[in-house]
Amino acid sequence: MTTSADAVASAHAAFHDAAHAPGMPIVAVIGDGQLARMMHTEAIELGLSLRVLAGSHDASAAQVTKDVQIGDYTSLDDLRRAVSGAAAMTFDHEHVPTEHLRTLIAEGVNVQPGPDALVNAQDKLVMRKRLRELGAPVPPFAAIESVEDARAFWQAVGGAVCLKARRGGYDGHGVWFPDSEVELVSLVEKLLGAGTPLMAEKKVALVRELSAMVARTPSGETKAWPVVESVQTDGICTQAIAPAPGLGDALQQEVRALAKTIATELGVTGALAVELFETVDVAGQPEIYVNELAMRPHNTGHWTQDGCVTSQFEQHLRAVLDYPLGSTELTAPVTVMANTLGADEDPAMPMPQRMQEVWKRYPEAKIHLYGKGHRPGRKLGHVNVSGTDVEATKKAALDAAYFIVHAQWP
Amino acid sequence: MTTSADAVASAHAAFHDAAHAPGMPIVAVIGDGQLARMMHTEAIELGLSLRVLAGSHDASAAQVTKDVQIGDYTSLDDLRRAVSGAAAMTFDHEHVPTEHLRTLIAEGVNVQPGPDALVNAQDKLVMRKRLRELGAPVPPFAAIESVEDARAFWQAVGGAVCLKARRGGYDGHGVWFPDSEVELVSLVEKLLGAGTPLMAEKKVALVRELSAMVARTPSGETKAWPVVESVQTDGICTQAIAPAPGLGDALQQEVRALAKTIATELGVTGALAVELFETVDVAGQPEIYVNELAMRPHNTGHWTQDGCVTSQFEQHLRAVLDYPLGSTELTAPVTVMANTLGADEDPAMPMPQRMQEVWKRYPEAKIHLYGKGHRPGRKLGHVNVSGTDVEATKKAALDAAYFIVHAQWP
Ligand SMILES: Nc1ncnc2c1ncn2[C@@H]1O[C@H](COP(=O)(O)OP(=O)(O)O)[C@@H](O)[C@H]1O
Ligand SMILES: Nc1ncnc2c1ncn2[C@@H]1O[C@H](COP(=O)(O)OP(=O)(O)O)[C@@H](O)[C@H]1O
Ligand SMILES: [Mg+2]
Ligand SMILES: [Mg+2]
Repeated sequence: MTTSADAVASAHAAFHDAAHAPGMPIVAVIGDGQLARMMHTEAIELGLSLRVLAGSHDASAAQVTKDVQIGDYTSLDDLRRAVSGAAAMTFDHEHVPTEHLRTLIAEGVNVQPGPDALVNAQDKLVMRKRLRELGAPVPPFAAIESVEDARAFWQAVGGAVCLKARRGGYDGHGVWFPDSEVELVSLVEKLLGAGTPLMAEKKVALVRELSAMVARTPSGETKAWPVVESVQTDGICTQAIAPAPGLGDALQQEVRALAKTIATELGVTGALAVELFETVDVAGQPEIYVNELAMRPHNTGHWTQDGCVTSQFEQHLRAVLDYPLGSTELTAPVTVMANTLGADEDPAMPMPQRMQEVWKRYPEAKIHLYGKGHRPGRKLGHVNVSGTDVEATKKAALDAAYFIVHAQWP
Repeated sequence: MTTSADAVASAHAAFHDAAHAPGMPIVAVIGDGQLARMMHTEAIELGLSLRVLAGSHDASAAQVTKDVQIGDYTSLDDLRRAVSGAAAMTFDHEHVPTEHLRTLIAEGVNVQPGPDALVNAQDKLVMRKRLRELGAPVPPFAAIESVEDARAFWQAVGGAVCLKARRGGYDGHGVWFPDSEVELVSLVEKLLGAGTPLMAEKKVALVRELSAMVARTPSGETKAWPVVESVQTDGICTQAIAPAPGLGDALQQEVRALAKTIATELGVTGALAVELFETVDVAGQPEIYVNELAMRPHNTGHWTQDGCVTSQFEQHLRAVLDYPLGSTELTAPVTVMANTLGADEDPAMPMPQRMQEVWKRYPEAKIHLYGKGHRPGRKLGHVNVSGTDVEATKKAALDAAYFIVHAQWP
């Protein structure tokens, strides 16, 4: 006898099977956010296909994809279901438990990037230590396991302290700049008390932030994109300018080489973002420190969709499948990406009308939306604009992004 | 009591609802081929969403889309189901019966392009007459309703006859070049006998074929892409070179203006392809004739995905929703599109390996595959390559496309 539940399950299975062209590999993406969504865009064009492990059917990536498996990325069984028959497993976030990845690998799953690489993106202290070992320039740092550690570090760096949660932080959640030793100590007491493992590093006198992105295949091919300037507002990336204006050729080459070295030494596969600080050394020359690593397509790489021969999403798919990497040549002298972050209140003007207003003024604005409902500060989409003049291009991208969220011009 | 069928239906309905972000318009696309598939790619990025009326779940567009309605585009009820709740209805082919479109419009559906425009793309004789009325240059032509019509036309054009089925032709199916009056007569007898309405036109001494694409909104905004050269092999478009090499500025402007006039006068909305013949006039100067019209994204516009700020698929969606149109500026001096048409035999080398071989040699090749199984002559995908030099770019695109289907270099 066929029950309703059986019938639904078998209809779903047949439906999901139809999502994959015969002879073409399936990539299973763990995560249902905009990164998975934009991977799907590229997968469609390449004739590859994606399976998404999603929390719900209306999540950003699940919304637009046919083969959606509903599940929890912390459940080994759900992960197993998601990767069944897939040529590779990859991620739109770094939060899948390492032990599950090891189990899946033992079971023959092709996990890219693997857990030994990923751990360097999951734990900021592990990352810092590993980077220092590699000889990458990093700010002075220390593990903070007690109030004493905190006091000692405050003294050591003369009060220029940046305190960080070792795990789980994003968009500036998990980063604090205490103004006094007292504030630091009280923060540390509270956080350690709540079970949050901590580290601290020297607060760097930033001139600006940069991002160096690279992709690497399991076979070891690497390809770097031009280094970009990234603008962070309250810890969230709000803009990226590609290539980074005024970055000297020598420094550009040095940073690209550094990103490749990190990718290779850490065994990263897929896209890697190396977030950097640019400061000024005693001689007044630009100096670089590595901030953190993300092992997946990254917000500072969204510009590649419209400003580069190969986007980070296509490159990530090629890389995790161990295919030859694509050209990272620019298609325009400058491309600016501006994030559209949900305003405090969602304006009454419907989103489609906002898009139209933007396009009336800027027909060249490339609007990317993630299919998400409004929430203050939420990443709802981004706008890319390419051009020849940095200032004009920046103005167009920022104006457009502002209008998308505020329904008025800045 | 819930039956299995009810349960499946309600699970499907909930699933399809999840495919559409709240507040964002749904575009219903009638057709499940690669054009609908590539519209979906752009819809994802724009945050719009597509519903596809497909013949089966594994069809090219259905494969990658969440909201798939299975049905027949000649069934009014299936069309009604597909457009329910959609902001606009559009097409990936021109074969939906005109009377159904009129009924749907009467029921309040926003059909773009509408039946009065579409009829000019559905019937080559109607199209020719309308183009002549507009003053567009067309080859001499006549309706062929009898053997006498055929004989008279043969005499009138001195034997340079191109016979065409008025409806339903594509990729050269439905186009004949009889070598003698006898052959013409026997063809005409056979075809008319089989109920195929016919027309004939003068066989033009082609120098080459061009394609002028333009998009138009219901409000009347038009935007033209640069005119391209299209290479047809046995009636199938095999290459497009953008912009058309050596086309003088004056002729380029004239042809773009002509395409805009046709779009406006015929009330076309969405993408319009105007296929053209370039010949030489008595003074040795290039001369243009209009061949035919397609009211949808077109094979000669695939290059826009990688060579233009706004692709034809994004532009089509913007146009049918009556949104402002995007910039049609080039992103590279030259872009060549080469079709990958199924070889006589499908080589043993798996498709993913062929892609890898192509990318090893041409990391800049943009491979687009449609998720279709092999069939000789079938359009399985295309390759776009951008560059600076026409010959080198052409070689890369043609080599790549050749390898994709033959698993060897030409
Ligand atoms: N050591 C530091 N000195 C100065 N600013 C810092 C430092 N560390 C982080 N920041 C600022 O805080 C932002 C977020 O820190 P980061 O470690 O990248 O956290 P997240 O994981 O939330 O992105 C950085 O982009 C930078 O603007
Ligand atoms: N009048 C003509 N003179 C010379 N060649 C023609 C003529 N009409 C069609 N052709 C050739 O046949 C091809 C297919 O004709 P077309 O009417 O465009 O049919 P289809 O609808 O199959 O694309 C054209 O692209 C062109 O190469
Ligand atoms: Mg960061
Ligand atoms: Mg044609």
